[in-house]
Amino acid sequence: MKTTRTQVVIVGAGPAGLLLSHLLDREGIESVLLENRSPDYVRGRIRAGMLEHSTVELLVEAGVGDRLKREGMEHRGIYLQFPHERHHIDFRSLANRSVWVYGQTEVTRDLMQARSAAGQQSHYEVGDVALHDIDGESPSVTFVDVEGRPHRIDCDVVAGCDGFHGPARRSIPEGARRSFGREYPYAWLGVLADVAPSTDELIYAWHPEGFAMHSMRSHSVSRFYLQVDPSDDVAGWSDDRIWDALARRLGHGQDGWQLQPGRITDKSVLPMRSFVSTPMQYGRLFLAGDAAHIVPPTGAKGLNLAVADVALLSRALAALLRDGDPRPADEYTDTALRRVWRGTHFSWWMTSMLHVTGDPFDAQLQRSQLEWVVRSESAAAGLAENYAGLPIGY
Amino acid sequence: MKTTRTQVVIVGAGPAGLLLSHLLDREGIESVLLENRSPDYVRGRIRAGMLEHSTVELLVEAGVGDRLKREGMEHRGIYLQFPHERHHIDFRSLANRSVWVYGQTEVTRDLMQARSAAGQQSHYEVGDVALHDIDGESPSVTFVDVEGRPHRIDCDVVAGCDGFHGPARRSIPEGARRSFGREYPYAWLGVLADVAPSTDELIYAWHPEGFAMHSMRSHSVSRFYLQVDPSDDVAGWSDDRIWDALARRLGHGQDGWQLQPGRITDKSVLPMRSFVSTPMQYGRLFLAGDAAHIVPPTGAKGLNLAVADVALLSRALAALLRDGDPRPADEYTDTALRRVWRGTHFSWWMTSMLHVTGDPFDAQLQRSQLEWVVRSESAAAGLAENYAGLPIGY
Repeated sequence: MKTTRTQVVIVGAGPAGLLLSHLLDREGIESVLLENRSPDYVRGRIRAGMLEHSTVELLVEAGVGDRLKREGMEHRGIYLQFPHERHHIDFRSLANRSVWVYGQTEVTRDLMQARSAAGQQSHYEVGDVALHDIDGESPSVTFVDVEGRPHRIDCDVVAGCDGFHGPARRSIPEGARRSFGREYPYAWLGVLADVAPSTDELIYAWHPEGFAMHSMRSHSVSRFYLQVDPSDDVAGWSDDRIWDALARRLGHGQDGWQLQPGRITDKSVLPMRSFVSTPMQYGRLFLAGDAAHIVPPTGAKGLNLAVADVALLSRALAALLRDGDPRPADEYTDTALRRVWRGTHFSWWMTSMLHVTGDPFDAQLQRSQLEWVVRSESAAAGLAENYAGLPIGY
Repeated sequence: MKTTRTQVVIVGAGPAGLLLSHLLDREGIESVLLENRSPDYVRGRIRAGMLEHSTVELLVEAGVGDRLKREGMEHRGIYLQFPHERHHIDFRSLANRSVWVYGQTEVTRDLMQARSAAGQQSHYEVGDVALHDIDGESPSVTFVDVEGRPHRIDCDVVAGCDGFHGPARRSIPEGARRSFGREYPYAWLGVLADVAPSTDELIYAWHPEGFAMHSMRSHSVSRFYLQVDPSDDVAGWSDDRIWDALARRLGHGQDGWQLQPGRITDKSVLPMRSFVSTPMQYGRLFLAGDAAHIVPPTGAKGLNLAVADVALLSRALAALLRDGDPRPADEYTDTALRRVWRGTHFSWWMTSMLHVTGDPFDAQLQRSQLEWVVRSESAAAGLAENYAGLPIGY
């Protein structure tokens, strides 16, 4: 077994792990990244595309925001829609913040490039990752590399950025952790199409048939979502059926608005789940992002919550490992979870307001809620503050 | 059968029916009130005690607000509380409106006195009330008076102010009406006590054991509510058990705050239900208040929604019967229901935020929501605008 040593072993090289290694490097702390997938797989994974104000600020400050500022699309709000009505919720005027459309794939690519340029130590396509002695001061991680050779890395801290299914969270003894969750009785059919967006900003539409959303990845790639049954298979959703449903739910023809169809390049059914695990720190293991919490995608919070976790964690680890101050690390669970629960509540709220349940009373509450949000400045400001995002450390 | 004639037969002489007869009188329209209970019963019925800004304005304008202004207690907000934290939500500064504590029994008493002074025709303790020909232009109502004599009143319009259980709503053919509703899995134990309130304004408290509320009826009578199981019997709630639960849930001793117990004069278990029936107008029958909708009491909206209905209805009937303009009457369902759904949504929201369900994820969402409401000015303003009440006709 090949044994090496570093300060922080980061399990998972998605955007959370990559950004953590980048921020730690800037604090003078050495890390090694472990990832069970290949670089191409990580780069190609289609995920969210909406960055909060503070996420953009952090990426720019960390020196990985050049292309984002050049190619990303700044949006000052979203459209909120229900039959016969479309309203613009203007985050700039309501909350003095904007958001940026820039795909998670692009953030990942920028971070991979930055880490590679900095000579980051990484192991891709590893297997059998196991965490050891996380409750002591000298933890270690073992794994098998892409060529089948066993490794062991001794370290001061393990950072679990390995997503919902990764081994990090499960390394905390069952009796020492607790989870909260909700399964939603609906799913999203996500559709990627090679066509210019038919809207300048995102459309969130309530419709008696179900939620629909018009998002985008670039000036030539559009992203759409349709509320579907969790048991639905993409095979049942032909391109024609998708465009018909999008046209109806998004209001094609209403006030002259046109939905422009195009070539569909990807379809997938996304589950909707809320999940929060506590604590986010156990001994020398710290969790960040999906490893500790999952939100339904309606509020565009997943990546942004992960970025905020990592920002807090990099500061906490710098204090612990460089300055000998354990307090931010000890407070990491409380500090991070306060923001996580805000995002979890907001995501649940957006999701519950916009998805049809089949209960007519729910539908009436949703309509009344939507009418309130578009008529009341305080209600609209509440949505804007949450969507555009709270300061990191809130 | 004794047959008489009037313009409007009002079924139900609770606050909605009494106020409608009063407002119609001021528009020069004659009405007759029918009530199946005795005046003493109506006067003694314990109900809500919080009047919205626009309810107070309306009562004052209608000349029945003198004692309210003299004896009522103006409140500029409420306290919102969860373990270790109590926050004041200031309606005045957030929404430029206040509310008034003045029992529904007092409103009823003032209205009965005004109607009696004006020579209002009323029949109390009637039986077998039946509505006829409401889909034509000459409806009538038959009933049996307190001495067993049959009556028939021909009229232009029937107003159903007869509450959830009355005959008016059921006179609309089943195929022509639709209802929406929710039963909540908890109830309130309402407690009336001869003791000065231990707070200057109402306390709404979330607690892991269940919701608790400290309200009041006057400077010497306090009103309390405890979340209980809907199957609970008052017999299981001794005075000692009630004071113990109130002290724990309301935070006796926290920051020096003291709950002063006193002699309990009434205990009852109140169900929690949301219900909306549409349409509120069918032919020449118009529904107002509990006859058409029920809210859980958490948002203090029941009486206030009834008053708003009646205000809209009196104007619509004046236009129809005096000015020959049917439009406000034709629009009554839409106009009234928009406000009813706002109140229904708000009541559901307050109820859902404050009552423990037993699901730990719900409890965390509630805590995050409460923390948001007390930290974000826009969230607090949203609560304030809804609680202090929207303008009638919103």
